[in-house]
Amino acid sequence: MTEEVRIKNTGLRGVTVADSGISFIDGEKGILIYRGYRIEDLADHSTYLETAYLLLHGSLPSAAQLSDFMSRVRAARQLPAFVLASLRLWPREASPMDVLQACVPLLAMAEDTIAASDRTSCLSRAITLVARMPTLVAAWHRIRNGQPVVPPDDGLDHAVNFLWMLQGQIPDAAMARDLDVCLILHADHTFNASTFAARQVVSTRASLYAGVAAGIGALSGGLHGGANARVMQMLLELEHEEDIEGWVRSRLDRGEVIMGFGHAVYKTGDPRAAYLKRMGQRLAAQHGGRWQEISQRIEEAALANFAAQGKRGICTNVDFNSAPVYYLMGIPLDLMTPLFAVARVAGWCAHIMEEQFADVQGKPALYRPQAEYVGEYCGPMGCVYNPPDRRG
Amino acid sequence: MTEEVRIKNTGLRGVTVADSGISFIDGEKGILIYRGYRIEDLADHSTYLETAYLLLHGSLPSAAQLSDFMSRVRAARQLPAFVLASLRLWPREASPMDVLQACVPLLAMAEDTIAASDRTSCLSRAITLVARMPTLVAAWHRIRNGQPVVPPDDGLDHAVNFLWMLQGQIPDAAMARDLDVCLILHADHTFNASTFAARQVVSTRASLYAGVAAGIGALSGGLHGGANARVMQMLLELEHEEDIEGWVRSRLDRGEVIMGFGHAVYKTGDPRAAYLKRMGQRLAAQHGGRWQEISQRIEEAALANFAAQGKRGICTNVDFNSAPVYYLMGIPLDLMTPLFAVARVAGWCAHIMEEQFADVQGKPALYRPQAEYVGEYCGPMGCVYNPPDRRG
Repeated sequence: MTEEVRIKNTGLRGVTVADSGISFIDGEKGILIYRGYRIEDLADHSTYLETAYLLLHGSLPSAAQLSDFMSRVRAARQLPAFVLASLRLWPREASPMDVLQACVPLLAMAEDTIAASDRTSCLSRAITLVARMPTLVAAWHRIRNGQPVVPPDDGLDHAVNFLWMLQGQIPDAAMARDLDVCLILHADHTFNASTFAARQVVSTRASLYAGVAAGIGALSGGLHGGANARVMQMLLELEHEEDIEGWVRSRLDRGEVIMGFGHAVYKTGDPRAAYLKRMGQRLAAQHGGRWQEISQRIEEAALANFAAQGKRGICTNVDFNSAPVYYLMGIPLDLMTPLFAVARVAGWCAHIMEEQFADVQGKPALYRPQAEYVGEYCGPMGCVYNPPDRRG
Repeated sequence: MTEEVRIKNTGLRGVTVADSGISFIDGEKGILIYRGYRIEDLADHSTYLETAYLLLHGSLPSAAQLSDFMSRVRAARQLPAFVLASLRLWPREASPMDVLQACVPLLAMAEDTIAASDRTSCLSRAITLVARMPTLVAAWHRIRNGQPVVPPDDGLDHAVNFLWMLQGQIPDAAMARDLDVCLILHADHTFNASTFAARQVVSTRASLYAGVAAGIGALSGGLHGGANARVMQMLLELEHEEDIEGWVRSRLDRGEVIMGFGHAVYKTGDPRAAYLKRMGQRLAAQHGGRWQEISQRIEEAALANFAAQGKRGICTNVDFNSAPVYYLMGIPLDLMTPLFAVARVAGWCAHIMEEQFADVQGKPALYRPQAEYVGEYCGPMGCVYNPPDRRG
């Protein structure tokens, strides 16, 4: 009960606002489950597109269903010509997250049947977005660099195709599989800030596209999806630093934050972070371990300092462990958050459809909280309005 | 206490999530206050731009401050060339709300100092958005109709300039004043769905633009800003209906909703609706009263039916009363919700800045609620993953 009484100005932390059947976090045990399946099992055995199907449909597909779903995604990858033409007009220094947020409503405009709001139409929009988000990120990157756009290749799997469109060469198969696993690990995460924003937008009966555009906006924030790029920025700044332990200590002594530690929900460790850490260690053994070494020294020094201050349960998070992995894959810093969006779009769409179609008895249609008014107040008749020339 | 216990699946209705000093609703007395001033006083005496200043700064401007603010807005109206060029590429049937949502991140791209996040930079962004939202709506309307774009005129006030850009002729002064008053009445409304979405997005430290784009997405929903156009659609469908009372009764008998009645917060009447109703009656006396007559007959029939069913306190809302006013001003149906956004952008920006800069002790940075997991669950080890060819 205590949590529910202290609800004002708490960012809804610890407040249960809805039922959901999509994903489940046990913050004490460090468990993340999508539709019943542990993410470690999905990361070991599944693919991103199969996981997207799982999130969207609620159960794993049969072989035929998976094949059909993959065909639909592949067929939907190509961007409408007017979207590509628009991208060519935009300032090359634009934030790729702004580009993504702008393009999602353009995809809505490209749809003939946008007035329909049934489940089948929404699922078809979700497939369009899962298919086109990678194309948008890659096309923007090529265009801003003055390189020819590489069209999607129907014969390639999701992650392979993304790296092909981004880099113009077929990636190493092991690296593409690692990227696919990263996308699985980022595909959903209960009512995080961007997902809640997306759900809230569509609770007004706005379209799935409008909800996803809001999710992209929330994800762009430095405290949410923007964190992975800021971790990598920190690692790059420390490339030639000898005394990493001293750097960590002096930051913490000054009361400053070190990027990539802690999470609102996990108390004993984030299973995605642990999985990515192992992936990073394996990649370091193969490709050289400079970033792995720096991040490990930061982690050890920070944890030692936290322990000395009596702070327990602060661990590295998913941003800390994904950043060096993405960097090794050749992902530019400012595409790390867009790549998060490329993965999370499956979760956003699953949550949007749950918000729109779940049958919850007596649930009001839209999220409409209240604020306590703490501003100027002259009583119910209001303050006296004086014209500009008679004001103090 | 009872409200706070039953929080799940209630759309946060009746739940106080934050302090705010921007606007105040007394739902029992039918009062709406912006920063201390009743909206009736502002509608009688103020202008939209002065009200925008009030919302953004917290107090009414001196004559010099108002003059400076108006100059800044006028100087910021013009769209960047790449935005106009992009608009020309988009499908003419596109929803104007999708167009607006796409354009807001484009305005972010146009800004040189987008990395700054101080109060002065945010205020400057708010001015840019207040200035450019009308230009965007008008430019899109001209472009989709194959008409030349009418550039903003520095010598014209906010509402006059909007109608000039939209219609290519200087409007009647009384009509422009009525539109300015409509914008005042729509400028803010506490934690409505679009404002809450905007606040939530920037709580992650996303940019003001990202928050406004989310607000536009939420406003596009049929249960929120989309309602005014749906009211006008209903009035148009009833243009040649003789038996409006019969139409109302049979809809209500079938359990169907009549657009434009009721509000989540007002229990005895919405002061904006009452103000707009008087405006509509005056306009009807001047310009012919067909829509006024139809809407009045709908209102009377619906209220009589509600009373017969023992339902009290359901009144016509702001959408019901703004739709015929906008229609008389020559605003196309699908620009009514964008016009709502043109007004509400001042409130969104004020709330975004409050979210970003208000000093609330101990407040966590972002909105991150929880969901209760009601999905598939096979215990903490997860369901067994079988490969596709071994599934049932």
